[in-house]
Formats: sequence, structure tokens, C-alpha cells
Amino acid sequence: MKPRRWNLIETEIVYRTPIFDLHRRHSGHPHRGRRDFFVIDAPHWVNIIPLTDDGAVVMVKQFRHGIRGFTLEIPGGMVDPEDETPKHAARREMVEETGYDSRRISFLGRVHPNPAIEENYCYTFLAREVRMVGKPHASGAEETDVVLVPLRTIPRLIVSEKITHALVIAAFSFFHVYNPPANKLGNR
Amino acid sequence: MKPRRWNLIETEIVYRTPIFDLHRRHSGHPHRGRRDFFVIDAPHWVNIIPLTDDGAVVMVKQFRHGIRGFTLEIPGGMVDPEDETPKHAARREMVEETGYDSRRISFLGRVHPNPAIEENYCYTFLAREVRMVGKPHASGAEETDVVLVPLRTIPRLIVSEKITHALVIAAFSFFHVYNPPANKLGNR
Repeated sequence: MKPRRWNLIETEIVYRTPIFDLHRRHSGHPHRGRRDFFVIDAPHWVNIIPLTDDGAVVMVKQFRHGIRGFTLEIPGGMVDPEDETPKHAARREMVEETGYDSRRISFLGRVHPNPAIEENYCYTFLAREVRMVGKPHASGAEETDVVLVPLRTIPRLIVSEKITHALVIAAFSFFHVYNPPANKLGNR
Repeated sequence: MKPRRWNLIETEIVYRTPIFDLHRRHSGHPHRGRRDFFVIDAPHWVNIIPLTDDGAVVMVKQFRHGIRGFTLEIPGGMVDPEDETPKHAARREMVEETGYDSRRISFLGRVHPNPAIEENYCYTFLAREVRMVGKPHASGAEETDVVLVPLRTIPRLIVSEKITHALVIAAFSFFHVYNPPANKLGNR
């Protein structure tokens, strides 16, 4: 028997936070009655792999409140209302968090961070030939430490759990295997 | 200047749902004062790539309430209190959702689904030589449709957005590139 769709009967915002809202979705199913499902409502997210001319990825160390510890990530964040496109948001986050910029930005792929409880996408981009154009801006509650990581060491850092963020690993997997750039620079 | 750690001052559960709780963490920082951060508290998650002898991945189609649509995923779910280990949970989910089983299960890697707002890990396993041992159990609100997908088509399904779940893509990336099994069966 094919799985059937649940139909939304009513939805209610049960809690608001500065970065997402929690919704209760009361839904009905032809065979399974009515139930509440809880969903995180957040803007789309972006991340971006900033590559220098000589094969380094510009990464950031930052404190993450979920795990109450520091992570090693590529720059990323939310698509703000002022961002015209996800690409614009990705470039803005890269400049804000690292101080590096480039005009050579291309789309690598997009994923659902968690389709069970979130509606949003995370869009991933590649920035080639990035150059330092300024200092990172520590904004609001965020402080970042910029780290240049040789691209060839990324797989090792993933397997050894120095890089653990699923959306960062998904981003690198597009670059390495699922949607590799035709001109695979930085393989040195 | 190195980024500094935020210290937890007090934490409060502001909303409970059947699959996660929402916590408010009031935290303090040496340079940035005090603020509230909101975190999803959930059990660890697991997923598993079930591979048949002849190179197919046993996948499931299911309705996901976050995106209000159907996804194509590998089996997975939460580590329940009764599960002795994440491996046990992964095998249980595989049998429940697909009706396939195997004793040849190995660990591929683990990721933080979202270290900004979640503390938990998702553990990924590979099951080789899986065989059908029964029917999937449609439990509670879940109904799944089992689909056999040739392993060689997975990269194409990721790039064409037929597979969009970040944790599923991260799982396949361990298999394909970051922690490939020594005996890479199923490459036909």
C-alpha cells in the first residue's frame, strides 16, 4: 500500500525565537486519524566553500550553542530579507565571517537540512580565487576565527571528526563527488 | 582575537514535543554580555545504507511533515532508550522501515545534524548483503514505501534533487568518498 499524504488541518505558532519559530501542525490522514506534528520554521540557509588560488579553503572556528563547543566550518548563515538571492546571502556571509571575497561564485547544490522537521533548504556555493578584502565582522553574538585549511586535507578532517557539521560535509560532498567543478582547481 | 566560549547561566525547557524539546539557554560571554540562545534537545539519530548482494540500496519513500511532501531516504530514526547502541537502533530502523536485515553492519561515520541548534549526533552505518526477512511495520504515524535503487544511480539522484535530505547525502558521502569500505561491493 502506497503511503498517503497527511493533510494540514490547522497550524499554530507555539513558540518564537530570534532564529526560528516552532509550529504545531494539526494534520489528518486517511488511515491514521489526526495528530499533531511539530515543525521548525526557519529562513533558507546558505553555505559557501571559499577557495584561494593556492588550494586552501577559508574556514571559520566558532562557538556553537547546540553542542556548547567550537566547530570548524565553512562560512554560512541565514538568507536575510535584504538578500536578493541565496547567492547574495552566501557571498555576504563569506565576507562577514572571513573577510575574503570573490566574484567567481557558482552554485553546487541544495539540500533539505531536515525534511522531517524543517521546511527550508540549505543552498551551497563555491567561491574561487577568493582574496582577503578586509577583516571579519564580529556581529551580534558571533565571533569567528578564520583558518586556512588545505583542500586536500578536508576528507581526512571529516573522517577524523574535526569537521562534523552535516551541512558542511554535504557541501564538500557536492564539490568532491556529486557535482565536482569541471575545472577542479585546488587539487594540489 | 580568538573567539571565546559562552558559559551557560541557566537553562529552561520552554516547549516539549514528542520528538524533541525546545530549550532556552541563558548564557554569558566575557565581551558580549548575556543573551538567550534556543536549542533543540533530541536523542541521537541514526541512519543506515542497506545494500543488497546485487548492488541495490534499499530506500524508503515517506511523507515528511517539515516539507509537507514525500522524500526518498535510507532508513533511519531516533536512538530509543531501549536501544543498547546506535548500531542496534540503525538495524532496528532498517528492519522496521524496509523489512530487510543483515548481520554485516559496519560504522561509516557520525555528524552533527546542526551544531548551532542541536546537541545530538547522527550515526551512519552500512549493512551489506541485506535480505528481505519480512514486511515493513507501519508504526504510529509512519508509512513507508520500500524502493530498490541501484547504487550506481545515487550520485545522479543527489544532483537531480531526487534525494535532498542532508543526513542521507552525508551518509552516502562517507560511503563514496570520505570513508569508503575497503571491499567496495555494489559498484556495478
